[in-house]
Amino acid sequence: MVLWSGRFSAPSDDDLKKLNDSLSFDRRMYRQDIAGSRAYADAICASGVLTPAERDAIVSGLDQVQSEMDAGTFAFQPSDEDIHTAVERRLTEIIGDIGGKLHTGRSRNDQVATDLRLWTAEALAQLAAAVHALQHAIVATSEGHIDTLMPGYTHVQPAQPVTAAHWLMSYFWMFARDQERLTQITGRVRWSPLGAGALAGNPFGIDRHALARALNLGTPMTNSIDAVSDRDYVAETLFAVSLLATHLSRLSEDLIWFSNPALGFITLDDRYSTGSSMMPQKRNPDPMELARGKAGRLIGNLTGFLATLKGLPTGYNKDLQEDKEALFDSLDNMLQILPVISAVVRTLKINPARMAEALDEEMLATDLADYLVRKGMPFRQAHHCAGTAVRVAGEKGVRLSALAVGDYQAITPLFGDDVHQVLSFSRSIANRSAFGGTAPSAVQEQIALARAVLAQSE
Amino acid sequence: MVLWSGRFSAPSDDDLKKLNDSLSFDRRMYRQDIAGSRAYADAICASGVLTPAERDAIVSGLDQVQSEMDAGTFAFQPSDEDIHTAVERRLTEIIGDIGGKLHTGRSRNDQVATDLRLWTAEALAQLAAAVHALQHAIVATSEGHIDTLMPGYTHVQPAQPVTAAHWLMSYFWMFARDQERLTQITGRVRWSPLGAGALAGNPFGIDRHALARALNLGTPMTNSIDAVSDRDYVAETLFAVSLLATHLSRLSEDLIWFSNPALGFITLDDRYSTGSSMMPQKRNPDPMELARGKAGRLIGNLTGFLATLKGLPTGYNKDLQEDKEALFDSLDNMLQILPVISAVVRTLKINPARMAEALDEEMLATDLADYLVRKGMPFRQAHHCAGTAVRVAGEKGVRLSALAVGDYQAITPLFGDDVHQVLSFSRSIANRSAFGGTAPSAVQEQIALARAVLAQSE
Amino acid sequence: MVLWSGRFSAPSDDDLKKLNDSLSFDRRMYRQDIAGSRAYADAICASGVLTPAERDAIVSGLDQVQSEMDAGTFAFQPSDEDIHTAVERRLTEIIGDIGGKLHTGRSRNDQVATDLRLWTAEALAQLAAAVHALQHAIVATSEGHIDTLMPGYTHVQPAQPVTAAHWLMSYFWMFARDQERLTQITGRVRWSPLGAGALAGNPFGIDRHALARALNLGTPMTNSIDAVSDRDYVAETLFAVSLLATHLSRLSEDLIWFSNPALGFITLDDRYSTGSSMMPQKRNPDPMELARGKAGRLIGNLTGFLATLKGLPTGYNKDLQEDKEALFDSLDNMLQILPVISAVVRTLKINPARMAEALDEEMLATDLADYLVRKGMPFRQAHHCAGTAVRVAGEKGVRLSALAVGDYQAITPLFGDDVHQVLSFSRSIANRSAFGGTAPSAVQEQIALARAVLAQSE
Amino acid sequence: MVLWSGRFSAPSDDDLKKLNDSLSFDRRMYRQDIAGSRAYADAICASGVLTPAERDAIVSGLDQVQSEMDAGTFAFQPSDEDIHTAVERRLTEIIGDIGGKLHTGRSRNDQVATDLRLWTAEALAQLAAAVHALQHAIVATSEGHIDTLMPGYTHVQPAQPVTAAHWLMSYFWMFARDQERLTQITGRVRWSPLGAGALAGNPFGIDRHALARALNLGTPMTNSIDAVSDRDYVAETLFAVSLLATHLSRLSEDLIWFSNPALGFITLDDRYSTGSSMMPQKRNPDPMELARGKAGRLIGNLTGFLATLKGLPTGYNKDLQEDKEALFDSLDNMLQILPVISAVVRTLKINPARMAEALDEEMLATDLADYLVRKGMPFRQAHHCAGTAVRVAGEKGVRLSALAVGDYQAITPLFGDDVHQVLSFSRSIANRSAFGGTAPSAVQEQIALARAVLAQSE
Repeated sequence: MVLWSGRFSAPSDDDLKKLNDSLSFDRRMYRQDIAGSRAYADAICASGVLTPAERDAIVSGLDQVQSEMDAGTFAFQPSDEDIHTAVERRLTEIIGDIGGKLHTGRSRNDQVATDLRLWTAEALAQLAAAVHALQHAIVATSEGHIDTLMPGYTHVQPAQPVTAAHWLMSYFWMFARDQERLTQITGRVRWSPLGAGALAGNPFGIDRHALARALNLGTPMTNSIDAVSDRDYVAETLFAVSLLATHLSRLSEDLIWFSNPALGFITLDDRYSTGSSMMPQKRNPDPMELARGKAGRLIGNLTGFLATLKGLPTGYNKDLQEDKEALFDSLDNMLQILPVISAVVRTLKINPARMAEALDEEMLATDLADYLVRKGMPFRQAHHCAGTAVRVAGEKGVRLSALAVGDYQAITPLFGDDVHQVLSFSRSIANRSAFGGTAPSAVQEQIALARAVLAQSE
Repeated sequence: MVLWSGRFSAPSDDDLKKLNDSLSFDRRMYRQDIAGSRAYADAICASGVLTPAERDAIVSGLDQVQSEMDAGTFAFQPSDEDIHTAVERRLTEIIGDIGGKLHTGRSRNDQVATDLRLWTAEALAQLAAAVHALQHAIVATSEGHIDTLMPGYTHVQPAQPVTAAHWLMSYFWMFARDQERLTQITGRVRWSPLGAGALAGNPFGIDRHALARALNLGTPMTNSIDAVSDRDYVAETLFAVSLLATHLSRLSEDLIWFSNPALGFITLDDRYSTGSSMMPQKRNPDPMELARGKAGRLIGNLTGFLATLKGLPTGYNKDLQEDKEALFDSLDNMLQILPVISAVVRTLKINPARMAEALDEEMLATDLADYLVRKGMPFRQAHHCAGTAVRVAGEKGVRLSALAVGDYQAITPLFGDDVHQVLSFSRSIANRSAFGGTAPSAVQEQIALARAVLAQSE
Repeated sequence: MVLWSGRFSAPSDDDLKKLNDSLSFDRRMYRQDIAGSRAYADAICASGVLTPAERDAIVSGLDQVQSEMDAGTFAFQPSDEDIHTAVERRLTEIIGDIGGKLHTGRSRNDQVATDLRLWTAEALAQLAAAVHALQHAIVATSEGHIDTLMPGYTHVQPAQPVTAAHWLMSYFWMFARDQERLTQITGRVRWSPLGAGALAGNPFGIDRHALARALNLGTPMTNSIDAVSDRDYVAETLFAVSLLATHLSRLSEDLIWFSNPALGFITLDDRYSTGSSMMPQKRNPDPMELARGKAGRLIGNLTGFLATLKGLPTGYNKDLQEDKEALFDSLDNMLQILPVISAVVRTLKINPARMAEALDEEMLATDLADYLVRKGMPFRQAHHCAGTAVRVAGEKGVRLSALAVGDYQAITPLFGDDVHQVLSFSRSIANRSAFGGTAPSAVQEQIALARAVLAQSE
Repeated sequence: MVLWSGRFSAPSDDDLKKLNDSLSFDRRMYRQDIAGSRAYADAICASGVLTPAERDAIVSGLDQVQSEMDAGTFAFQPSDEDIHTAVERRLTEIIGDIGGKLHTGRSRNDQVATDLRLWTAEALAQLAAAVHALQHAIVATSEGHIDTLMPGYTHVQPAQPVTAAHWLMSYFWMFARDQERLTQITGRVRWSPLGAGALAGNPFGIDRHALARALNLGTPMTNSIDAVSDRDYVAETLFAVSLLATHLSRLSEDLIWFSNPALGFITLDDRYSTGSSMMPQKRNPDPMELARGKAGRLIGNLTGFLATLKGLPTGYNKDLQEDKEALFDSLDNMLQILPVISAVVRTLKINPARMAEALDEEMLATDLADYLVRKGMPFRQAHHCAGTAVRVAGEKGVRLSALAVGDYQAITPLFGDDVHQVLSFSRSIANRSAFGGTAPSAVQEQIALARAVLAQSE
């Protein structure tokens, strides 16, 4: 059943039909489509287009359609262009011509916009739960390593010692920002376009506010042209998952390199490693590589859709049909990868001994400078003196703790007999106790705040 | 003055220096940099690193640096790598070695993150004001055309009549969503990384909450590693302006085509049109074309930066230096183009006669179908009957109103003698009076809501 | 059959398996995979790893696998990770343990790279043929309109008259450049990675040049690490189809607007128009809108894959598995849309009367200026005088041809009695007879060149 | 001097002017602009528009303009919209009204297209030279390490031993592909749009082939509408440098991690490392991080410009003005970073001892399997046996060479007394002697081929 054949003298070309039809990907929105139709039947019943008996017939017909789809027994026809057509076609088979009353005052333009908003709101809720699980995994794994020392890097060069918990918890806050974004976007997803018609509004005086409430959506959209052509929420969702994906990609990059044997900071569980068809010894961190790689794909989905939106003329344009595959692909990928990453983090083995091996006393050079600052030397000179100590030790081929007090005093007499006490990794860490620092006390506070954040959203 | 020469035995290569230095683009953040330094001086004074006298000397030195920069008399040196270096170098020239105390416990990593957040918050406020002005222009121009009829398009084909106000107001709500996003992003921009140091936190026990308050920022960031490497707010801003730009591009596409003489719906003011070096008659809508074209550029800035973020390892990496040029470019372009577009909208001449010419009775076919629905015919059949009427009129080469009642009744006897009354554009519009529709009454309500939205943000 | 279980003590997690497996999308490369295996069996037979009898057994087993796949009777197993695993598993079922000899010295890394290159080369050939058909359609439709006048636009404003053939042929040359790119890329696709192993090369002394010849590929790749990790050809293909798609999007934009009734320059055939579920009169240019919209999607596939490539460490990384879905999606979409667009162009009705209506004498202002130039006035003044004539006519509300000779001479006495002869659209066009211009003579030459280009590639 | 004021009654708004003007970025094309004008003066002289004396006056005036610009004494005026306007304005000041004849039959549309093609061709030549220098550096550094063993990685996990030369040379071939692309693109850049006018062609019968030759360009473009709106070559260049940038980003990722002290495979020269404002010991690989980060930026420039092109209507549109800043930015960044990366590679210290330390006998597991294959066992079983050996050694906590022959024979009796001979890294490498493998003999052949490639392009 093509819904629109009246004015045409020739049927569509087959190639065009294949190109145009969206059933293959929009059928997954059947529950949302039927929910929208149920609510719409009520609305046009309230405004007198349907009698209560007609409304009941339609609703019960829709129930049957849904049962068939739930059960997988629904027989799609080649003529079904999209999920809307399929549902209306079957409804009319079941209840007769009255089924043809359902589309009164409605267009596929406001219908699909409603379906997709309902679908997206549900998907965002699932996504939030999956991120939540990952945040839990991060906190759980971190809690065991509040005192585990490791090199903190900037530029991938040893910078200052940090704790493993502090390193891993840095990802918690990235995902916390993702959660905040998801919540805010959901607010803009949950608007109701239904009743906007094709573009000009509804001529049967329906109550769009009541309709929105019936769909558990917020306010109806205020301009019918905007209602049918707005896809901001799709772009926003694609952006939010792209940024989430870059966070996963950064975590992945760390885990991939930290499990290289030369570093050996972590070991992935066998269940989350894979082997090679050729090299018998291999244990590959495939999930992390896929997470890193998929960040690119998700950025692409976002970019592509923004480019699709760019320059569109007023109202609904068929270009907008490109919204769904990008959205589905990004969310499907995210919902598939997040549980794996959560499991990786939960089952991760952190190797404190290997982390300790990678600590180098040079990483305490800032502490040396801070020592001089405490003796009154301006930091800029102190930085230079500490740098000189590093260079001298390097030239002698020894560690900083192997330089004699005299060597230090040759650099500046402000170095006292107690200079070697500075060269302690745990002392360095304990010093960074201001809010947000790597000191165990500060990390404990940080984890408590994280737990509070998680509790709020449960 | 290179801040870090102590441990090096050879100076940097000149090509590297040119590649590495960021002064050419980060110097515009000098106010933010100095504000951050003033607040930091207070913070390390409070924690005992500076005496009050030293703090006063530093603050007064910073005042002088700022005066010189404000006045354009500041002499940058080839050795100034970036704005931070330039300020500290000059401060030390002015107040002597005490200037070297300012950087105690601070790193350029937390410093630049603070500067850029302060800068971005200010730029977002300017952007919000510029969007606000555009929204005002849309409302003002719309108000004069609540009864002006024009073709409403879907697929760029005549769909149903709408009013010019309804068409133009559809853009208002796109920009209203942009405003909501800008507000929410600003909330995440206004966090304080200061006191995070290079990555590990501050060892001098400073009060980061007080420091955040002094900078008029919200809470300090909770993890020092995250604090120095988070650029989510840059990506979010780039996204928000990209989506804003797609809205401008859509408005532009409309105005460009609507000012093509075959349509002639609008005339751009001479002040916002340009000519041709070769064709004397040309009046080109350059600002709209640039707005449309720049949407691409802004999408590119977003995409590029997300790609830069993807896969970065833990902590600060120099790759992040790519954040500023993209951010500045997107915001500068937006702040340059928005006032022009606002002026274009404000000075736009809408041509009701040309809009009326483009109305075609076929656009009332839906009203014909709705007429049959009101007589009890299911919409699906009514749609077919109305389509048939369109085809019959087309075959006879006449308008729908030129078909006789008998012609209509040959299609279905439900058509009554009053069928011609349906064929009225203004009646069609008046019917779409449900919330958000194109009926003048509904558009008046819409404009009242828009004015309320604008008033809230003033 | 997992190919690599020897060293693992725990099986893969199910979620990871789902995430990791690529069979759902790489199975379409089964012919290429089997072709590669046949050639490889020959190669390791030649180097003594297989006896001729073993080679024959393997080849005949592969034949059977291919038959089963061709016939759709091949039974995939849940343990088949990818097409390579599936083929080897089934081969071993058919011919026994000898099947396990096929992978000697080979890795899935060089195997998949070979498969994908073979697949891409075939897809590019199909794509070239589809573009070729479109170019033919353009030439055929253009040939009927060498003398049809229409407004030529710049900035979507009437600029100078052109012929419809000249307008449409402008797209021919865009697609000609696409063809050149496809040819050049194909040259880089047709390199042979086979024999590179996992990364280090082949230890059985196989003849990689012979192997490349057997696969009808060009030279073997020169560095085994590069051979397994190079995906330049994927990025290049994604770029080439993106640029092709922008050309289609530009053509689409023209056809969409030109079929708006206010312009009415063209009419799409009923077979390539679609209707509306709600508005009975609608005839929508869906294929052109989809072509325009899909340009965004293809740009996204390119961008995403470049972002995936960015920053990858040496050798094969699992991130590269993201190559196939992007590549398949872009090529599938292109191969689906091109035949429709070709048909649209072939069946396009051009409406010379509507094009003529849109011609405005102002478009001859440049000819007026050129007239003065021929009388000796510098073009810059001539441009000004012609602009003044346009303004004067506008102020009088008349066309340029309605200005009297005296009016012209009041602007400059260089205007002679013959000034009105300039105001001819066909004369204007005939004048642009230099190579590449819109004069019918030049367009005929252009079409002849186009036909020659097409003939070359047939 | 605005070139087009004749028909306008009000001057442009100042904000529009700022938005519209392109002088700030297009002035760098002054040499190309003047070269185009010189050639064009000849062409319209040949076709009779200019007398030889006028042509000579114009050419000598242009010479003076160029001298002033070369010397930096040219005084730009606020009214100069772009470089074309500036040159024509000054030319007319110098030689009087005859200067106004130069633009006869020419438009800024064909003029800017010519300028940009000339500029791009020069920039591509510089780029090719810079890539060439990098390839030389790679070969030079590789030659010293044909026998230096290091771990070859896949998935960043130790895979098989390779030589340092083989690893580094893998980048040579990426850049060789870049060179091939640059050459092919240059062929499409070097086409001549000049003489296309604004869109419709040239009415003065100029010889466009002669004009193309005079500019050292290839054939004139065949369709004038295409000639002024084609920006494929910009998109192609942006793509080529993006792909080049991903290659640099991959090399950078390797060098960044390989210089992490836990690996220590390489040491960057002090001249190409930078320090920290806070941490005195730091030696950061900034140039590599910038190269990696800038890959994102370049991908953004490409993406943005493709989005700008998408959906543009026929002919020149102002959106195209966005071409130059993206192009300039990408090429400037590339030309700035390539010499630094070349120098990094040339001065790189490779540390064979650290590479040797990272070799692990597990990397010879494939050799163990190959050993069994040579004894007649199918590879699939051999892979399993070798994997078992790895697991057994792991369980015993010893290296593979510490397993007794009996341990091996317990896995399969095919293991002979000579099994320990397999466990040699250099033997493993020597075995991979097929074309493109890591064996020193194959790498020598590879380097000879690379040298031949370089010689060809010198």
